[in-house]
Amino acid sequence: MEGRTRGGVVWVEGNARERFYDSRGYGRPDGPALELAPVEAAHLLYRGDLDAVDGQGFRAYLASVPGLAVRFLVYKDLRDRGFYLAPTTRGGAAARDAGEAGDAEDAEDVDLHVFPRGKGPWDDEVAYRVRVVGERTPVPAARLGDATLAVVDEESEITYLESRRPTVSGTSDATLPEGVPAAMLGDRAAVWDPPAELYARGFYGQPLEGEAGGLQLSLLEAAHLAGRGVIEVSGGPDAVTERGREVEGDRFDRRLAVYDDLRGRGVVPKTGFKFGADFRTYADVTSVEELGHSELLVRVLPPDHVFQPRDLALDVRLAHGVRKTMVFALSDGQSVEWLAVERLTP
Amino acid sequence: MEGRTRGGVVWVEGNARERFYDSRGYGRPDGPALELAPVEAAHLLYRGDLDAVDGQGFRAYLASVPGLAVRFLVYKDLRDRGFYLAPTTRGGAAARDAGEAGDAEDAEDVDLHVFPRGKGPWDDEVAYRVRVVGERTPVPAARLGDATLAVVDEESEITYLESRRPTVSGTSDATLPEGVPAAMLGDRAAVWDPPAELYARGFYGQPLEGEAGGLQLSLLEAAHLAGRGVIEVSGGPDAVTERGREVEGDRFDRRLAVYDDLRGRGVVPKTGFKFGADFRTYADVTSVEELGHSELLVRVLPPDHVFQPRDLALDVRLAHGVRKTMVFALSDGQSVEWLAVERLTP
Repeated sequence: MEGRTRGGVVWVEGNARERFYDSRGYGRPDGPALELAPVEAAHLLYRGDLDAVDGQGFRAYLASVPGLAVRFLVYKDLRDRGFYLAPTTRGGAAARDAGEAGDAEDAEDVDLHVFPRGKGPWDDEVAYRVRVVGERTPVPAARLGDATLAVVDEESEITYLESRRPTVSGTSDATLPEGVPAAMLGDRAAVWDPPAELYARGFYGQPLEGEAGGLQLSLLEAAHLAGRGVIEVSGGPDAVTERGREVEGDRFDRRLAVYDDLRGRGVVPKTGFKFGADFRTYADVTSVEELGHSELLVRVLPPDHVFQPRDLALDVRLAHGVRKTMVFALSDGQSVEWLAVERLTP
Repeated sequence: MEGRTRGGVVWVEGNARERFYDSRGYGRPDGPALELAPVEAAHLLYRGDLDAVDGQGFRAYLASVPGLAVRFLVYKDLRDRGFYLAPTTRGGAAARDAGEAGDAEDAEDVDLHVFPRGKGPWDDEVAYRVRVVGERTPVPAARLGDATLAVVDEESEITYLESRRPTVSGTSDATLPEGVPAAMLGDRAAVWDPPAELYARGFYGQPLEGEAGGLQLSLLEAAHLAGRGVIEVSGGPDAVTERGREVEGDRFDRRLAVYDDLRGRGVVPKTGFKFGADFRTYADVTSVEELGHSELLVRVLPPDHVFQPRDLALDVRLAHGVRKTMVFALSDGQSVEWLAVERLTP
């Protein structure tokens, strides 16, 4: 059986519908004939179910359509895992196969609809909405949140990364005093005579033990607390924010917006430095003695951030290894949008 | 007992030498008097052993010397861990305390000599050569290799990162055929009829199972093999390198230099994508069936790379979590220098 390319899709006549669509979910039927996206045609060629497309066998066809190899690998992998799946638009898929993946104007922002196991294109259910990218394809943060990325690395291994918009919330809520004197100390601050609840209930700062001790605060903690009147520093809250901008630039404003947002949601952010992140977070802090495991790792990014898949893989793998969820906080220094990314095994 | 600042150091008269140097290793004796670096003076103030420096107590003194807080935290932490230690140059340390840390012209490139437990400045042995940085201090790769970084994060926790120049070597060495036909396939290549040893002994490529299968090669593998005459592609080795530069720019040349270097050392590099790195490596591959655990994660960087401590923390933490050593390959596309960084608990 042979296929012919017309208008970016592959047509197969004869009883193609019966052979490939009805029982195995390939293509879009048109009477007894079948319209196949190039990736479907490639898979049928690979399996030996089609003999040729435009006279080409599997190897030649795979090399002849730009970008098809990467898409084929994902299509095949998902088929091997027992799924039926369909390119979202056949012409569009063909256009994407031709190298236009990543065009922000795409009507549908994914490449493949993967149906639940046991279901197919004749049902009306989608298990995964998959975007296929090579490991070198930059992925704008704005295009994540409701899609699964299938990243094909340079050695043709596939990593699935599920993205979603998580609800970030907790129950931490400490009652704090007001007007506690604090001092700036270079790129941090100190409360030399801290009220106990600041650390013990609010989990603010890091105690410096000893008689001369006190509570060390990060600039973020200091800015947050000064902004709420809990601590008082010379120059007021602006002096803290100013100092933050001196050492971090705009990043400080973004991180402070996220810090404030988290505290407002009842979630306690502490530094994520040891995990290479901005914050690790605790959703339900009632006292520092009964602190549980931190749940999220948070990286703060500007809203127009563009991920390199490798950086995403690094963050997600690390978070997984320490049993936390990787969350990106996209902030312009005012509002915050949340994006969670996790490894997925379809 | 009081100290006075003169020439960037703190002088303590009386029996200071006896009290602080002879038994506890603070300062540099000058007759019965003692010259202290600001960080040593701060620690003695903190402990209550000194009453004041220039009339200031611990809190005021700590705030009065720019950059002293960060250095004090590390000095204190190492003392708490049972070490005696000394700023490398007292005037120099004072100059650094005044905010000049990171000056590449420093004669000595570290801030603290930490003596082995049980030893002190009167001995002639150094356990750790420590550079103190804040988490926001950029660290040039060229300044690592024989020092331990003490990174003080924004919440005043300390992470110690040991750097060294590792010997990278292995025993992998497969005998390969020559002139095997290969085809370019977008941003990868394929050997459609691969000799078995290419994968089974050399661990090159990724098999695509099935009748139509073959061996998929990354562009790096293809460039390496084409350069050695093992595979033949249309356009020769240059066509592969050219394609690599199209998709990765200069980075491809750096990565290929590192790939070639590793193979030359008997070490097999495979993609490190799932770990967010360039490569994971296997030192002793005799056959793919008996593959052990990969030992290193390799990130390729240009020689003038400047690390953000947070990125270093991320890489090192991930590598540790998967029981591998994080190694940076600094390459200009020709030569390669190796740098290993590991978390250290002093």
